[in-house]
Amino acid sequence: MTIGFEHNEKTADLLARLRAFMAEHIYPNEKLYYQQKTEGDRWAHIPLVDELKAKAKAAGLWNLFLPESRHGAGLTNLEYAPLCEEMGRVHFSPQVFNCQAPDTGNMETLERFGTEEHKARWLEPMLDGKMRSSFVMTEPAVASSDATNIQSSIVRDGDEYVINGRKWWISGIGERDCQILIFMGKTDPTAEKHKQQSMILIPRDTPGITVVRPMTLFGYDDAPHGHMEMIFENVRVPASNLLLGEGRGFEIAQARLGPGRIHHCMRQIGMAERALEAMCRRVKERVAFGKPLAEQGVIVERIANSRIMIDQARLLTLHAAHKMDTVGNKAAKAEIGMIKVAAPNMACQVIDWAIQAHGAAGLSQDFFLAEYYAHARKIRFADGPDEVHRHQIGRSELAKYS
Amino acid sequence: MTIGFEHNEKTADLLARLRAFMAEHIYPNEKLYYQQKTEGDRWAHIPLVDELKAKAKAAGLWNLFLPESRHGAGLTNLEYAPLCEEMGRVHFSPQVFNCQAPDTGNMETLERFGTEEHKARWLEPMLDGKMRSSFVMTEPAVASSDATNIQSSIVRDGDEYVINGRKWWISGIGERDCQILIFMGKTDPTAEKHKQQSMILIPRDTPGITVVRPMTLFGYDDAPHGHMEMIFENVRVPASNLLLGEGRGFEIAQARLGPGRIHHCMRQIGMAERALEAMCRRVKERVAFGKPLAEQGVIVERIANSRIMIDQARLLTLHAAHKMDTVGNKAAKAEIGMIKVAAPNMACQVIDWAIQAHGAAGLSQDFFLAEYYAHARKIRFADGPDEVHRHQIGRSELAKYS
Amino acid sequence: MTIGFEHNEKTADLLARLRAFMAEHIYPNEKLYYQQKTEGDRWAHIPLVDELKAKAKAAGLWNLFLPESRHGAGLTNLEYAPLCEEMGRVHFSPQVFNCQAPDTGNMETLERFGTEEHKARWLEPMLDGKMRSSFVMTEPAVASSDATNIQSSIVRDGDEYVINGRKWWISGIGERDCQILIFMGKTDPTAEKHKQQSMILIPRDTPGITVVRPMTLFGYDDAPHGHMEMIFENVRVPASNLLLGEGRGFEIAQARLGPGRIHHCMRQIGMAERALEAMCRRVKERVAFGKPLAEQGVIVERIANSRIMIDQARLLTLHAAHKMDTVGNKAAKAEIGMIKVAAPNMACQVIDWAIQAHGAAGLSQDFFLAEYYAHARKIRFADGPDEVHRHQIGRSELAKYS
Amino acid sequence: MTIGFEHNEKTADLLARLRAFMAEHIYPNEKLYYQQKTEGDRWAHIPLVDELKAKAKAAGLWNLFLPESRHGAGLTNLEYAPLCEEMGRVHFSPQVFNCQAPDTGNMETLERFGTEEHKARWLEPMLDGKMRSSFVMTEPAVASSDATNIQSSIVRDGDEYVINGRKWWISGIGERDCQILIFMGKTDPTAEKHKQQSMILIPRDTPGITVVRPMTLFGYDDAPHGHMEMIFENVRVPASNLLLGEGRGFEIAQARLGPGRIHHCMRQIGMAERALEAMCRRVKERVAFGKPLAEQGVIVERIANSRIMIDQARLLTLHAAHKMDTVGNKAAKAEIGMIKVAAPNMACQVIDWAIQAHGAAGLSQDFFLAEYYAHARKIRFADGPDEVHRHQIGRSELAKYS
Repeated sequence: MTIGFEHNEKTADLLARLRAFMAEHIYPNEKLYYQQKTEGDRWAHIPLVDELKAKAKAAGLWNLFLPESRHGAGLTNLEYAPLCEEMGRVHFSPQVFNCQAPDTGNMETLERFGTEEHKARWLEPMLDGKMRSSFVMTEPAVASSDATNIQSSIVRDGDEYVINGRKWWISGIGERDCQILIFMGKTDPTAEKHKQQSMILIPRDTPGITVVRPMTLFGYDDAPHGHMEMIFENVRVPASNLLLGEGRGFEIAQARLGPGRIHHCMRQIGMAERALEAMCRRVKERVAFGKPLAEQGVIVERIANSRIMIDQARLLTLHAAHKMDTVGNKAAKAEIGMIKVAAPNMACQVIDWAIQAHGAAGLSQDFFLAEYYAHARKIRFADGPDEVHRHQIGRSELAKYS
Repeated sequence: MTIGFEHNEKTADLLARLRAFMAEHIYPNEKLYYQQKTEGDRWAHIPLVDELKAKAKAAGLWNLFLPESRHGAGLTNLEYAPLCEEMGRVHFSPQVFNCQAPDTGNMETLERFGTEEHKARWLEPMLDGKMRSSFVMTEPAVASSDATNIQSSIVRDGDEYVINGRKWWISGIGERDCQILIFMGKTDPTAEKHKQQSMILIPRDTPGITVVRPMTLFGYDDAPHGHMEMIFENVRVPASNLLLGEGRGFEIAQARLGPGRIHHCMRQIGMAERALEAMCRRVKERVAFGKPLAEQGVIVERIANSRIMIDQARLLTLHAAHKMDTVGNKAAKAEIGMIKVAAPNMACQVIDWAIQAHGAAGLSQDFFLAEYYAHARKIRFADGPDEVHRHQIGRSELAKYS
Repeated sequence: MTIGFEHNEKTADLLARLRAFMAEHIYPNEKLYYQQKTEGDRWAHIPLVDELKAKAKAAGLWNLFLPESRHGAGLTNLEYAPLCEEMGRVHFSPQVFNCQAPDTGNMETLERFGTEEHKARWLEPMLDGKMRSSFVMTEPAVASSDATNIQSSIVRDGDEYVINGRKWWISGIGERDCQILIFMGKTDPTAEKHKQQSMILIPRDTPGITVVRPMTLFGYDDAPHGHMEMIFENVRVPASNLLLGEGRGFEIAQARLGPGRIHHCMRQIGMAERALEAMCRRVKERVAFGKPLAEQGVIVERIANSRIMIDQARLLTLHAAHKMDTVGNKAAKAEIGMIKVAAPNMACQVIDWAIQAHGAAGLSQDFFLAEYYAHARKIRFADGPDEVHRHQIGRSELAKYS
Repeated sequence: MTIGFEHNEKTADLLARLRAFMAEHIYPNEKLYYQQKTEGDRWAHIPLVDELKAKAKAAGLWNLFLPESRHGAGLTNLEYAPLCEEMGRVHFSPQVFNCQAPDTGNMETLERFGTEEHKARWLEPMLDGKMRSSFVMTEPAVASSDATNIQSSIVRDGDEYVINGRKWWISGIGERDCQILIFMGKTDPTAEKHKQQSMILIPRDTPGITVVRPMTLFGYDDAPHGHMEMIFENVRVPASNLLLGEGRGFEIAQARLGPGRIHHCMRQIGMAERALEAMCRRVKERVAFGKPLAEQGVIVERIANSRIMIDQARLLTLHAAHKMDTVGNKAAKAEIGMIKVAAPNMACQVIDWAIQAHGAAGLSQDFFLAEYYAHARKIRFADGPDEVHRHQIGRSELAKYS
């Protein structure tokens, strides 16, 4: 019986295998990962990741994210949700399973909107885990939460497009394998507001691309992945690199954002679960004023509230995922917006409580908590800040009564 | 396909008929109900209710609450949830469908634990809507959130039990048709802590029962239903009135509390939905400082947050209901506790925002909001205050790591 | 030394006497007050109040509110604050000291803007405690938070003004001694927006005044004081009853609102202090799950937060009062707005926690808590809802950077 | 007149000069400071600081923190408060005025409890800005919020003490000028619980001291200041280095914590004010969806709430400072605890809102906000986590009713 959101057999099997893999290969290697990451050149490739990718691929835990495609594991969003949540428990683990942002969104974009040539050249190696990518949209000069503010230009010049603009928060550019960028800019600033934008493919090694600096989130630069500020000066690519046609950038953005947002939410839930687990373990061990923290009422209440908040957020995520599966990303827009607000706010709160239970250590490199907080806090901006989503949810609620 | 919590055919059909009934008979009669309730003797029976009950029975919208019984509509908790939510939108409507507390809990108790004689004498007329009942547990002298604190005595004397005690918050005693009480007290104060209590049936007209006064909730006495303080002095009933056996009061309490709690939660969700609807309608009409309240960002944000909170609470309620259906009330204890905390707190917040959108009128008799707030606030105490539930949820979360 | 907000000698003396009076005459009579209030005709005058008023007057605890006037006790707002807070601890006590709203605001209005004739006829008996009054502003048809929305008309006709309009939430009309109303309406709907309004004095017994019904706050009608809906139909008063001149209603409103708002806040703090005291006493007595509630961490934390919140709100109130004393009500507008938001929200929270510590009893007539909550909740609307004040505070903060 | 907390002449003069200094020398050099801090060896001394220190000393803005001493500026805590707040606006500025933690607390400790020899050798150069120091208390192995948990040993051996232990979060050890440590440990583990601890002076270059690693706060290591993990192995110092006598560590800790805590709070208020200023400036510039963020209701409401929260926290801080000045640090313990909870929680919220108004940029190195958040969050642990303070506040509130 499949009432509710119990896992079906396929999901249950994959989840069991994923958990086993994480228990065997991910958790025991977390320390090593941070060692390789912080020793020597912090922007160098991390060898451990390659090893683990090979193992995950061999274990059939690969490309689980891609629905409705002959590539990928053929999972629905609902089926993928618990797997994505599980991966979200360890910050570096999604890439081990080739399920990391922004590559997932980029692969989905290429799968849906790329030509056969695009797919052969970029999608195939990405699906194979040999190539990575970036999504280049946000600009420092304008409030990018309103995508119509974006000012970079993509100008046709014969058989080419010439691209100019300053971008930032471009995630993943730091990776050695990052070889292809999906860039959003204006092809026609005079067109109707939602038809000015286009998306175009730019190979990483095209002349005219400069990485200015890594941006930090709190004090984390997320090397070697990185969130970069970049300048594009007279960058030229063949006209065939334009996706779908001029003025269709918004259309593509809308299609890609739904899955991207819900994947973020699934991972937030995994992060929150792990923070709650850490909080429980910590307060059972730690004694202050003559009794374990676990016997102090305030702590117990926070644990209860965490459990309630996590379970509510998970159910809302699964509900949204199921809606995407059944009526499509566009019709599920309100549900996606709702969980996009609810999940990272929940995660911030749960992680903050877990930090508090750890004392100052909770803010340090000895626990994953501060780093997870930074990421959960960032997700409150990613793909639109809370306020933009709440505004849309509120407006659509009000629209029911006109 | 029944993934998620979509309504199945039976539920969808009943819900459509219930909505039609409410549109035709309930909403248009709200004003009349309050007129009959406030005019003349406020403690007199309200004739409108009888008329509507007859109509609901005729429409087959009757005893929808009772699962796993030849009586009732044979609905699971999950199937009943959206119906109960719908009834919850209007404070007096559950009784129209013979689905009102505390009668539902009392009927379920009789169905499960009553003898054939009990059933013939009390359950049948209750199922028929001819008789009502009270549940007599809470005491003024002790913190009744900890049920072991309860002090009233039930003492065997030959073929009878003699009952003594002071009780309060006894709901429904004000009703003309209230003819049977289920009373909880101690049969053996020396027994093991959870074996001291028993439950016994007391006909309303037994000598020795005094109603002291109605308790008020934020100024509301809920006449003619009422929440009464009562004295039981040497009240004598036949020994056969004892349910299940001496010392089994806790066992019965546990069995009855699950459904009672989740019904409360379902109704809270209906109340919150209606408050949100009222808020949306109000802010579209009302102009201040040159524009409708609906265009003011703070209001829109509250509407969005209300939608998110309601949907999360509903999903958690459905999840708990489904768990009750599949693994039983006892195994679903944690889920029931979680929703018992989440739903009324959510409802209090949503209703409070709706009040704020209505100005001072929102606190008055012109809208249902203040009265609903009072009831939602009360539910944070009913069947255990938030703190007790949170404590248990927190403890069981911690227990996972021992 | 008078750094900080320590009481000066005058205040310390009055406060000591006020506390002694309350200990002797107010607290011991609370029960009697509620008896007289609820027995028999609930709208009849309460004899106890007259007795206590005579005693307070004899004790020199009278008209403490009126600054800068030969009438009153000659206290500054800062000096009056702790006295007003103290009176606020018992809902009916301000009237015992002739310091009750809306009479205080009305007396202050007459003192500042009334003619000698107005003063002789209405102010003197009010200062003497022989007469009471109402302030008639809010209207059901419009969002009165924006006072320019007010629609009632005050039309000149020879030597008279003719008044028409529907008003509600008119407090104090139920009192036997209420004999004079200050009414706000439009004298010139075509004038510049803030010059359309005027205020006029209307004797209670003028023909054309109808009390439609009492409004309730939650379930409280505050009989015999009452918050009434009223109709004014062709009510005629002499032209000399107009205060200050046509079109100057806003000016008067602004002058009166400052003190009125801060008095509300002082009383809120007294209410919150008393709720905190009740919470502390309750949790020390009450045992659940084997230990007093006072030893349960969540309760202790709420007590600590209550103390922090109350002290912060008190300091902000004293700061605003001192600013009013030193730079005038108008220049202290931002500070008044801030405390108008902070105090009742703080009080609602503290009282709600106190309710929770009392169990369901906290919602009943056995404790003052639910009634205080209702009043604190109402103050979030009185003289402008939170949102209006926050909007102005935010705007003036932003204005610093233009 | 000095009612309230207006600045007296001395404070007003110092504040004006401090503001002028900051306008001329601090704000314009912030960028340079971060350049010197991040370029080359991140743990190297920052030359700019020396230059600015010389200027501040010349300007008479030096050692403002030390009350009741011939050293320092002779300011009371209340007089110092606005100056400390002002310095708190820029994270590196307190050291420019020789008012930085932990040196202030260490200087105060030496001033009060040091011998003449200690003062000549360490206090004088510290007051002169030539030497810096650390306070060594927190340990990784135990919940240091309960200071009786501390396990490091200080054992007498002839004319020396031998010190062993592992410590962390030792701030300032990274500084080139850090030459003296005040170390807390147990001299007698068998003594009465609060007499086991002592404090001892350890020159930085004593053999046996190892810096293990810098701890990070949300990714920030605060180089070159640093928060280090350290090992002390058979570190030997002369017996005369013990402060005040064996078993008096708690007494010293209590004396030093009051001022340290309130200085933190003053700086938090400065940080929050600056965050609010940044929020206001940002939202006036930034346009989304056709209008400046400053016209969006949610933003305006957050600005208003920030103003209310900051002003309340400042008043509570001033109140506590004044109490320390008039009744002493010990008698002002409750007030210090209250503001220790209120100020950093307020700052976290205000800064978080400011971050939200800046978009993802608010989390980056381009604004001071994320770094300030990290520090405000840390202060919720420094000198005891919120929970410990709330527990004590709550207990002492309850004690009023025994």
